Parts: sequence; C-alpha cells; structure tokens
Amino acid sequence: MIVRERPSGIRLFFAMRGSILGQIKWTLAANVALALLVTLSHGRLFEYKLQVSALPFSLIGLPLAIFLGFRNNACYDRYWEARKLWGDILLRGRSLARQVLTLIDAPTDATAEAALDERRRMVRRMAAFAHALKHQLRGTPDVDGQVARWLDRGEGDALASVSNKPAGLMLRMAQDLASCRRQGRVDSMLAASIDATLSGLTAAAASCERIKNSPLPFPYTLLLHRTAHLYCFLLPFGLVDSMGALTPVVVAIVAYTFFGLDAVGDEIEEPFGLRANDLPLDAICRTLEIDLLQSLGETDVPPPLEPVDCCLM
Amino acid sequence: MIVRERPSGIRLFFAMRGSILGQIKWTLAANVALALLVTLSHGRLFEYKLQVSALPFSLIGLPLAIFLGFRNNACYDRYWEARKLWGDILLRGRSLARQVLTLIDAPTDATAEAALDERRRMVRRMAAFAHALKHQLRGTPDVDGQVARWLDRGEGDALASVSNKPAGLMLRMAQDLASCRRQGRVDSMLAASIDATLSGLTAAAASCERIKNSPLPFPYTLLLHRTAHLYCFLLPFGLVDSMGALTPVVVAIVAYTFFGLDAVGDEIEEPFGLRANDLPLDAICRTLEIDLLQSLGETDVPPPLEPVDCCLM
Amino acid sequence: MIVRERPSGIRLFFAMRGSILGQIKWTLAANVALALLVTLSHGRLFEYKLQVSALPFSLIGLPLAIFLGFRNNACYDRYWEARKLWGDILLRGRSLARQVLTLIDAPTDATAEAALDERRRMVRRMAAFAHALKHQLRGTPDVDGQVARWLDRGEGDALASVSNKPAGLMLRMAQDLASCRRQGRVDSMLAASIDATLSGLTAAAASCERIKNSPLPFPYTLLLHRTAHLYCFLLPFGLVDSMGALTPVVVAIVAYTFFGLDAVGDEIEEPFGLRANDLPLDAICRTLEIDLLQSLGETDVPPPLEPVDCCLM
Amino acid sequence: MIVRERPSGIRLFFAMRGSILGQIKWTLAANVALALLVTLSHGRLFEYKLQVSALPFSLIGLPLAIFLGFRNNACYDRYWEARKLWGDILLRGRSLARQVLTLIDAPTDATAEAALDERRRMVRRMAAFAHALKHQLRGTPDVDGQVARWLDRGEGDALASVSNKPAGLMLRMAQDLASCRRQGRVDSMLAASIDATLSGLTAAAASCERIKNSPLPFPYTLLLHRTAHLYCFLLPFGLVDSMGALTPVVVAIVAYTFFGLDAVGDEIEEPFGLRANDLPLDAICRTLEIDLLQSLGETDVPPPLEPVDCCLM
Amino acid sequence: MIVRERPSGIRLFFAMRGSILGQIKWTLAANVALALLVTLSHGRLFEYKLQVSALPFSLIGLPLAIFLGFRNNACYDRYWEARKLWGDILLRGRSLARQVLTLIDAPTDATAEAALDERRRMVRRMAAFAHALKHQLRGTPDVDGQVARWLDRGEGDALASVSNKPAGLMLRMAQDLASCRRQGRVDSMLAASIDATLSGLTAAAASCERIKNSPLPFPYTLLLHRTAHLYCFLLPFGLVDSMGALTPVVVAIVAYTFFGLDAVGDEIEEPFGLRANDLPLDAICRTLEIDLLQSLGETDVPPPLEPVDCCLM
Repeated sequence: MIVRERPSGIRLFFAMRGSILGQIKWTLAANVALALLVTLSHGRLFEYKLQVSALPFSLIGLPLAIFLGFRNNACYDRYWEARKLWGDILLRGRSLARQVLTLIDAPTDATAEAALDERRRMVRRMAAFAHALKHQLRGTPDVDGQVARWLDRGEGDALASVSNKPAGLMLRMAQDLASCRRQGRVDSMLAASIDATLSGLTAAAASCERIKNSPLPFPYTLLLHRTAHLYCFLLPFGLVDSMGALTPVVVAIVAYTFFGLDAVGDEIEEPFGLRANDLPLDAICRTLEIDLLQSLGETDVPPPLEPVDCCLM
Repeated sequence: MIVRERPSGIRLFFAMRGSILGQIKWTLAANVALALLVTLSHGRLFEYKLQVSALPFSLIGLPLAIFLGFRNNACYDRYWEARKLWGDILLRGRSLARQVLTLIDAPTDATAEAALDERRRMVRRMAAFAHALKHQLRGTPDVDGQVARWLDRGEGDALASVSNKPAGLMLRMAQDLASCRRQGRVDSMLAASIDATLSGLTAAAASCERIKNSPLPFPYTLLLHRTAHLYCFLLPFGLVDSMGALTPVVVAIVAYTFFGLDAVGDEIEEPFGLRANDLPLDAICRTLEIDLLQSLGETDVPPPLEPVDCCLM
Repeated sequence: MIVRERPSGIRLFFAMRGSILGQIKWTLAANVALALLVTLSHGRLFEYKLQVSALPFSLIGLPLAIFLGFRNNACYDRYWEARKLWGDILLRGRSLARQVLTLIDAPTDATAEAALDERRRMVRRMAAFAHALKHQLRGTPDVDGQVARWLDRGEGDALASVSNKPAGLMLRMAQDLASCRRQGRVDSMLAASIDATLSGLTAAAASCERIKNSPLPFPYTLLLHRTAHLYCFLLPFGLVDSMGALTPVVVAIVAYTFFGLDAVGDEIEEPFGLRANDLPLDAICRTLEIDLLQSLGETDVPPPLEPVDCCLM
Repeated sequence: MIVRERPSGIRLFFAMRGSILGQIKWTLAANVALALLVTLSHGRLFEYKLQVSALPFSLIGLPLAIFLGFRNNACYDRYWEARKLWGDILLRGRSLARQVLTLIDAPTDATAEAALDERRRMVRRMAAFAHALKHQLRGTPDVDGQVARWLDRGEGDALASVSNKPAGLMLRMAQDLASCRRQGRVDSMLAASIDATLSGLTAAAASCERIKNSPLPFPYTLLLHRTAHLYCFLLPFGLVDSMGALTPVVVAIVAYTFFGLDAVGDEIEEPFGLRANDLPLDAICRTLEIDLLQSLGETDVPPPLEPVDCCLM
Repeated sequence: MIVRERPSGIRLFFAMRGSILGQIKWTLAANVALALLVTLSHGRLFEYKLQVSALPFSLIGLPLAIFLGFRNNACYDRYWEARKLWGDILLRGRSLARQVLTLIDAPTDATAEAALDERRRMVRRMAAFAHALKHQLRGTPDVDGQVARWLDRGEGDALASVSNKPAGLMLRMAQDLASCRRQGRVDSMLAASIDATLSGLTAAAASCERIKNSPLPFPYTLLLHRTAHLYCFLLPFGLVDSMGALTPVVVAIVAYTFFGLDAVGDEIEEPFGLRANDLPLDAICRTLEIDLLQSLGETDVPPPLEPVDCCLM
C-alpha cells in the first residue's frame, strides 16, 4: 500500500512513486509513437488517407464507459472487501485473546507447567494463523519461519504436512477448546461464544480464498482491454485533422488516463499480491502480533512496520 | 470459469479461449455483412437513399447505456452472490466438520463399530450434500454416483426417491444430531451451535435455488436485446456518409463490444450452468472433499481439480 | 413471472408474450401519430414552424438519464428484496419444520391423539401462514380456503376475525411453543432457537408489508413521467428537419424503449401483484406445501405449479 | 407520504397534489422571467451581446450529472434506511409483545392485581416508546399525551424530566425484565432473547437519531445548488440564438426537472419531518398500537389512519 | 460537521461558511489567471496559436466522469460508514450500561464500598473508551485528561503505558466481567450477552482504525488529480475561440465545481480529522457521557455541545 502525502501544485505532475506509469509505459510509448507518425504523415497510411471522424469515438465511448465504470467498481469492491476481511481477522484475533484469557479458567493441576497452558498456546497460535493465511494468499513460502516460531515444536512439525495450514490450525484451536471444556475449565455457554469466534475466523479466511480464486469473469477483462486499446490506437486518426500538431499531446493524456485506470484495476483486482498497491499484510500481521503479545502481558514486543520508500508491505 | 493469464500486446487481439466471440459470431457476421452491403451501395436500399444522421444514435444510446449498465451490474451481482454462497457452503462444511468432531462426544457404547459413528457419518454426508446441490442446480443426473459414494448403502437407496435431495440430507443431519443429543453426547447449548450451522447450509442452498429459479424480469432482457440489435443494425446507415470505406470496420468494433457485453451478461446471469464462464462447482466440491477427508484424519485424498484448456469446471 | 427461452434472430422482434408492449400501446400510438403528422406537415403547426434543434434533447436527456437509471435500480432493488424475502420465508419454513420435528419431544401423554400433537399443528400452520401472507400482500380474498385447510377447525374460525392474519398465526405458534416448553418437551435453549426462527418469519412478513406500503416517493414518479412524455412528444419536432421521412420510425424506437423502461419499472415496483412480471407467490407457496408435507412423512403431495402460457403466478 | 394513483394521459400534466411545484415555484418563475427577457432582447444585456454557445452546458453538465446522481442516491438511501428502521421498530415491537406474553410466566403472587403485571406494562410501554421516538425525531412536543396515555401515572410523571425519553423507557423495560428474572418468572436463556429484542429497538432508535443528526456534508449541498442555479440561469443565453421564441418553454422544462429533482432530494434527505413526502410516522405508530392491543386480547382498538387529501402523515 | 440552514436566493452565492472555497482558492485563482491571459492574448502563447477544439474535452471528460463519480461514492461511503460506526459505539455504550446495571447483581459483600462496584466502574470506563478512541483516531494527545477523569486513579496510571488504549480498556472490561462471573453475580448466559456487546465495541473500534489506516489506493488519487488539473488548465485554450470575453467566467465556474468536488472528497475521505466537514466526535462523546451519567442516576450532567460558528466538532 502506498502511504504518502498528496503532492500539490506542479509537483503533482512529477510524482513517480505511487504512480501507475511504470506498468503502462511501453503501451503508452507505442501509442504516442503512433500518434507522432500519424501527425507527421497527416493521417496518411501507405498513401491512403484514413477518414475517421469524431463519431466512432462517441460510439465506442459508450460501452467503454460502461466497462470501465463497472470494472472499476467491481475491482475496488474486491479490494475493500479484502481489507475488511483482514480487519475482521485482526479484531477477531483480539477478541479470541480476550475471550480465551478471561472465559477459560487456569488449569487446576498445579503440576502443569505454564508452557502447557492451552490458553497461552491458543493465543500464540492465533499469530501463526495470520502468518499462515498471509503466505497461502500470497503464494509465498514461509522462509523466515514466521508461522513455526509461534507454535510448539511438535505442532510446527505436524503442520508441515498439512496442505491447508490455516484450516489445520483452526482444527487445533477447536481441539484445545474441547479439551478445556472436558476438563471443566469453561462451561458450554462460554465455549459456544469462543467457538463462534473460531467460526468467524474460518469464514474470513475462506472469503479471502474466494477473492483469490475467483477473478472477474475473463471475457470482461478481454473485452475491456480490446475496446480500450482500439479506442486509444484509433484516436490519432480521429484527432489529426482537427488538432494538428497537438495530436500526440492529447493522445498521451487520454491514453495515460485510460491505460492507467485499467492498470490500477489490474493491481487491486488481486489485492493479496506483493505489488505496491496491494494490501499491507505484513504490517497487519505485525499489528496483531503486538496486540497478542501485550494481551499475554509481555513487554518485549516488536515495533510496528514502517513504510519503506512510501510503500507498506 | 476461465483461468488464464491476461494476454498483452498484439496477442490480446488473437486470444480466442475465453473470448465471447463464439457465442456471437453469427449475429456479428450478419451485422458486418449488412455494413458491407450498405457501404458498397452508398446507403441506398432499393434505389432509395436512407437519410440517417448521427442524432438517432445518441437518442437510442441513452436508454441503451442505462439498460446495459443496469443489466451488467445485476448479472454480475447474481454471479458474485452465487460465488459467495458456494464459498459459504465450503466454509460452513468445514465448520460443521470441526464442530461435529470436537463438540460431540464419542459414542460410549463400546460395541458400536466405527462405521456406525454418527460423527463420521455426518462429515461424509456433508460431501454428499455439496454434490447433490451441484447436480440439482445444474440439472444434471448424478451418473458417476458422486452423491451415493459418501453415504451408507441404506441412506443412498432411501435418498433416490426424494425429490429435493439436499433438503433430505439436511433432515438426516438434524435427525443424527437429535439422536446424539438424546444419547447425552452433546448438550443443548452446543447442539444449538451445530443446528445454526445446519440452518446456514440450508439457507445457502435455498438462496442458490432462488438465483436459479428467478431470472431477471423478462421484459428487461427483451427490451435490451431489441434496442441493442436496432442500434447495431441501423449503424451502417448512419456511418456510411461520414466514414466511407471504414464503415464495416467501425461497425464490427461497435457491434462486437455491444453483442459481447450482452452475451457475457447472458452467461453469468445463470451462474450454475456448464458453460465456460459459469462457476467451477466441480472444483469447489473437490476442495470440500479434500478438507473433509483430512479432518477425518484420512491421508489418501484425491488431488485438486486442474483447469482443462484454461477452463475449470 | 415470465418463464421462457430468449428468442433470437428475427423472432426477437415478434415475441409478444412477456413483452411490455401491451401496457404502453396507446401512448406509443399517440406518439407515433404525432410524428406522422409532424412529418407530413414538415414541422409546421397551424402555419407556424416550430424551430427545435437537437440541443433541448441533450439538455433534457441529462436529468432524464439520472431519473431513469435511479428509478430502474430502485424498482429492481424492491423486486429483488421481495424475492429474497420470500426465499427467506421458504427456507425458514423448512427450518421451522426441521426444528419442530427434531428439537421438540413427542408428547408423553399416551392418550393424546396424533391430531393434537403441537408439532404437527405447527408444521401445518406454517403453510397457512404463507398463504395468509400471500393474500394479504395481494389484497385478494381467500376464496379457495387455502389458509383454513391447513388449520384445525377451531383455529380457522377464530382467525376469521383477526385483521392481521399472519401475525395472528405467529402468535399461535408462540403459544404452542410456550405450551411445549411448560410441558418440558423442549428446553429453554432449544426453544430460543425456534423462537428465533419465528422472529425471522415475522421480520420477513413485516418487510414485505413495508415494500407493499411504501412506494417510491411520488414526486419522483411524477417528475419522471412528465419528463419522459415531454421528451418523446417533442422529439418529432427536433427530428423532422434532419431525418425526414424516417422520423416516425426513429420516434417509434425511442419512445418504445423509454415508455417500455418506464412500464417495466411500474410493474416490478410493486412486486406482489397479479401482473405478468410480478412474483410467482402461488408457485412459492406450493413449493413450501410440498416440502412441509414431505417433512411430515406424507407421500400424497400436490405437484409443483407449472407456468401457464409462459407465465408462472 | 403521498398515496395516490398514478395519473395518466393529459391529466399527468395537471396533477398538483404530490407535485413538487409548490416548493420551487418562485425560483422557477424567476428563471422563466429571465428567459423571456433574454428572448425579447435577443440575448443582449445592456446593449452587450452575451456570446454563449452550447459548449459550457456540456462542460458544466458533467459535474452536475455526477452531483445530481450522487445526491439523489444518497438522499433516497437515507429515506429508505429510515423506512426500514421504522419497519424494524414495528416488527420488533410485535416480537417483544409475543416474547413478553409467551416467555415470561404470569406472576405467582395471587394478590398482584392485573394492573401491576409487568408483562402488560411492558407491552403498553412499547407503544409509548414509538410515540416518544416519533416526537423526538420530529422535534414536536407531545401535546396530545400520546406517550403518557400508555404509561402508569407514576412512570409518566417520572419520564417528564428525562431528556432522552426513548432511552429512558428502554431502561425501564430492562428493569422490569430484570425484576421478572429475579422473581424466577423467566430463565436466563429466554431473558437473553428478550434483551436482544430490547437491544434491537435501542439500535433502531439510535440509527434514526444518526440520520436526523447527520445531514449530507454541507459543501455537497452548496456546490450542487450553485452549479444547478448557474446552469439554469445561464441557459437562456445559450438557447436564444438556436431556439428563438421557444427559449422560455425549453428553459421552463429543463429548470422544472432540475429544480424539482433538487427539491425532492431536500425533502427526503430529512425523512422524519412533517412535509408531504416525509415518512408517515403517525400511521406506523397507529399500526403498532393496534397490533399491541390485539396481542393483549383487547377488542376495542382504534382504526388505522387514512390518508387526508392523498397524504398520510 | 457544518450545521446550518441552506441559504436560498442570491445569498446562496455568497455563503462562505461551509463552502469549500477556502481549500481551493489558490488553484482556482491560478486557473482563472491563466484564462484571463489566454483571453487577452486570444489563445496565442509565445506567438504560437494553440489549436484546441472541443473534442479533447469530451474525450478526457469520459474518464474524468468515471473517476469523479467513483471517488465521490467511495469517499462518501467511508464517511457514512465512519458515522455509522460511531452511532454503533453510542448505542452499544448505552446497551452496555443497561446490561451491566440490570444483568449483573449488586455485590453481596456489604463491606464493599460503592466506589469499588465493578458495575459503576464499567459504565464510567465506557466513557473513557470513547474518548480514548477519539484521540487515537484524530492523533491528538489527551491534554485535558478526558480519558483519565473517568477511570480509577490506578487504572488511569496503568493505561498510560499501553499503546492501544481502547483495546487496553476493553481487556479491563472483560476482566471485570470475568470477576463478576466468578463471584456468581452474573450467570454464564447473561455474561455471554455482555461479552457480545464488548465484542461489538471492539469491532467498531477496529473498523474505525481500518478506515483511518487504509486510504483509497493512491494511484486513483494521483490519476484523478492529474486528469482534473489537465482538464481545467487546458480549458481556456478550448473555449477562447467560441466564448471570447466570457472565457474566464466559464472557466471559473467549471474549475470551481471540479476542484470543489475534489476537495470535498479529500475532506470526507478521512472523516476522523479536525477539519470543518469531519465527524463531530466531541459532540458524540458528550452525548454518550450524558447518557451514561443519567443511567447511573446522576443529575449533574454536562450540557450537549453546541456548534461554534456553524461548526460542530
């Protein structure tokens, strides 16, 4: 996620960080080159004058506006739903810690060591769940052991062979809860409250998977790309008669906004990636880690993540 | 569902897989043929010059834009709601497995064989439920026995005579749950939690049926088709004077986007079919099967489905 | 609800069943007649030439597009919300049957006859509830005794004097549930689950009443009708100079789409009526009847309703 | 709320009741007067010819369309949310009566008079709650004693000194419920169900307050008003050259729709007032009164409110 | 939040308070200055005549309309969601007070002083929670001790070292609730109801954080600003030929609406700040304080906040 102040005045036009220009520069360059060519040849292509009035642009402009507006809204809805889901994971993680620590009684068996307390284990497992979900959504391997460091050694090893790691961790949560219930440390009513929180976390994880696995129907993307490219690459022929030498400038502005709008849509359509405008899942996981550790009473907590070069991962 | 990388550059225009061109090719061909005819005859039809200016197109364009934008959004909402419902079935299926296995106690009667354990039976019945719902929504017969293989022999036979199979399976779930409750293996509070999950599954199935049985009001479809066809088939007469020989090209582009937009809407309006852009219900059912089997502790699980020719069913 | 295949090709223009043409034929005829008159007199009215350019149409077109788009969405939202509510009634009716039959124990008193079993009575009363709500929303009298046939004789007579019949039936449900609870046949926890289902049914019924009793604010309807009529009836004067003899054709197409769009909105704004595009409440009630009877174990169930002349009531 | 049949044909243009014309007549008259002046002077103002082409109108038309569409949707959403909230109050009021009368046992103390029964008192207090909320939202004093007549004398007097009367009544509800619970007349599980209904009523009341206290951000209103007025008052200068004597007619039509659209927005933005298109809170409160009295078994109930001069308050 | 009557007539154009003019005056001035220069030089720049027709404005106008409409809706949705969340905090705060005071029994230990009663402490802590959240969202230090004055001395000191103060206060709430439960002053069922209210408050606070921490994707903002500025600064060149001396007036109107629309979006995109159109969090906190104190039976309550210079903070 790009985190920066809004530039103003003339600097507005030279801000590169957070601009979408990087993704579209080659298509844009090709388009402007064509416009230059058309301007220099006065719209003649191989000695044949292409007769294009303004009419086709308003005709193609109608479905293009519908496509762009539709895709824009649909992509942003996906992005914002994904952000809400991770906000949900954050808050349910906190609620889980609060519930586990206040609704489940301490183990009565005095010989039980602190390390074996299910309550502590469940709170730490919550941090592992967030990291495991993050890696699953991004498709990245957990090279730094971000998941395993929050688990008991045995559990971490057992998890390695499970394909759907977040679901595996949730099943462990439920087993620990059932164990506490059988020990009489939490009554059924309150166990049901905690079970509802676990269901909420499972639901949020499944909804993230849904967003990841179900892109916009492909023909929309294909139709929109085709229409937008045809529109922009035909544009110089329609403008050259009325705009003259300004044609490449106007083409550059129009193509920049259309291709830019399209490229932003591409980025936020899949909000779980590692590109500049994707969701800062590392930062959210860190926030959760801090809150969980503080709820366990620990004071040695890691600092929140800061944006690097205006970009929070 | 089409699963493929977005083509770029010149390949964008030659991608056929996932394109909507197949559905609209005959209408499009007729339209372009008319445009050719009009161009060659300079807009004369039987010696009579049709005088059509650009004005009618902006007049018809207004209601057409409203129609297309409206239908586009309504169809996509149906598609996305259907996708959410199946995501819901997936996650509630997992929650059901987690709840059944951790909230219901094992049968106390030592003579009961494992095969008779209601908990195991309920988890397996969940897979049957998903397949039964899939076949009901698609209107396909279950030729491969995808439903029966998850059921006890007796239950499978009994199900054959039930018209609404998913509802019949849910009633069995409730009966097993009631039986466990009467045996004292689950208390009322936790049984109510499991009952809420069953209600959620019933609700998701009923909502899928609603989408299948309630198309968009028919006059919308009829009005939109008529307006779009009139617009595109009148277009050559309006363009021929100002565009000359380019008329068929512009008509092809405009008609391709309008008919294409319309055809995508047709496909995703009914998201439970077997066409390329419909929901990949087979793949979702397989994912659920894998998760259910793993939660039962089985290691011999089938692999996830892979797209065939870019298309996931 | 119109249920038919989408016509294609040339038949598209001659499909009458499901077309909105019936409702708008007189207004449309008046409009085309005016266009003919204007064309024949070359835009002169009583020897005075009305000088109307294309400009007013784009000026009026702006608020008209906003109105039509807004009203279209608002009416469809009402229609779809109404459909969802009846889907909700259907599924909660099934859930009620499942809950009543599995969560409430059979009466222990051996002398109680089956006919007196509250569980059976509650399931049958659910069907009466759906029919009573249907008649209340449609404003039709229950001439066929669709409600009374599902009730005990005494209850049916008592209901006759109640003004809000669905609410009266729900109160009876609650009384039966309270009676079962006092007999110890259902514990408080599970009774609360059933009570939640009753609250859900009450809520769905109240929401249907809200849709029925609260039309779109009247000035919207009035403003839209006035603007659309002014637009279409001024249209011939603006077209005659540039379109000549084609004026009536273009006017007919534009007026057909505008008046048609408006008339569809009128129909689906009040989705509980008896017109062709209103909701098929009879069919939904029949579906519920079948499911309820089957859950009671009866095999002699009525068949589902079929569309008559492409129209499902 | 205006309740009337949709006029058709020529009567459409003369319907005054329910028209928004009353609110905008002076602005509209000023605008048409200016148009007349401009037409008579052929666009000259103090001997200086204002040269205005059609271009500015399409330039200003763009943000104006965005504003009008946005404000229209936002205002209607507020109106419809308010209507839903009152539908919610209606149904939760009925649910409260059903729950109170069937889930709480009768007082066991035989000496308790009927007038002291908390159940009866809670049902009657529900009617007082609706009236108190209505007066709070409308900012009207309760001159007819609509609130006090539903309360015990003592409670009515005590309420007079409370600033937030609906909240005060809800606190009394909770105290009565707690008292019943302490007497053992309702168990905790069912008391929690009733408490959830009370929370729902509190939530609906608070949401109504939110709508009342948070108008649309003021700059939107100001910007929209300014842009719409500039558009309409500049319009005669842009039309006079091409439309001639028809200028005032076209200006009247365009200004009527723009100012009318704006005035409807003003009315429904604050849906709790006493203007013709505001919500019929009196009628909704009466409906609730009737239902509550009938659930108490009373037969002497007031009639539903009828519209006066097509207007339901 | 600006709270004022809508000005009408000629005063509409001179209302400054609540106008967005302050934020955009320099950009607007630069734009009008350029328009003046272009008008005086008849569109010549350094002896070179820039040939700009109306065409580029309709071409750039298309993506601009999509951007402005999209951003407008997205920003207002954020604003309105934030307002709903604070309405939620208000109502759950009241529900918490009602639940704590009626569902938890008084301490049985007669020696416990009133000041030690957890119920009283929890109600007062609710006010501290609202103020703490307000300061966290605004990023302001709590210089007036608005948080600490509602807490016991010990708790206020302990809170100083916690980074996420609202979460810390919620954990204390849960600990007090657990303590009451262990003392047998509230049973599990009712404790779960109160716990649900605490979860709701945690969720509302987390959603506010989400809105604060996740702005609209930056490329949208950048693309929109660039397109809007290019549009407005190119406008004089396109208008000067057809509008002549009126060019600066038309440019001023168009630029005022575009820049104004953009600036309102900037303000309400981040609704928790201290600018004129941000949410009145101080006033909402005060309302909550009054309600909480009255529910504790105190009569010495502070007055509601009044707008200062039409602006409620």
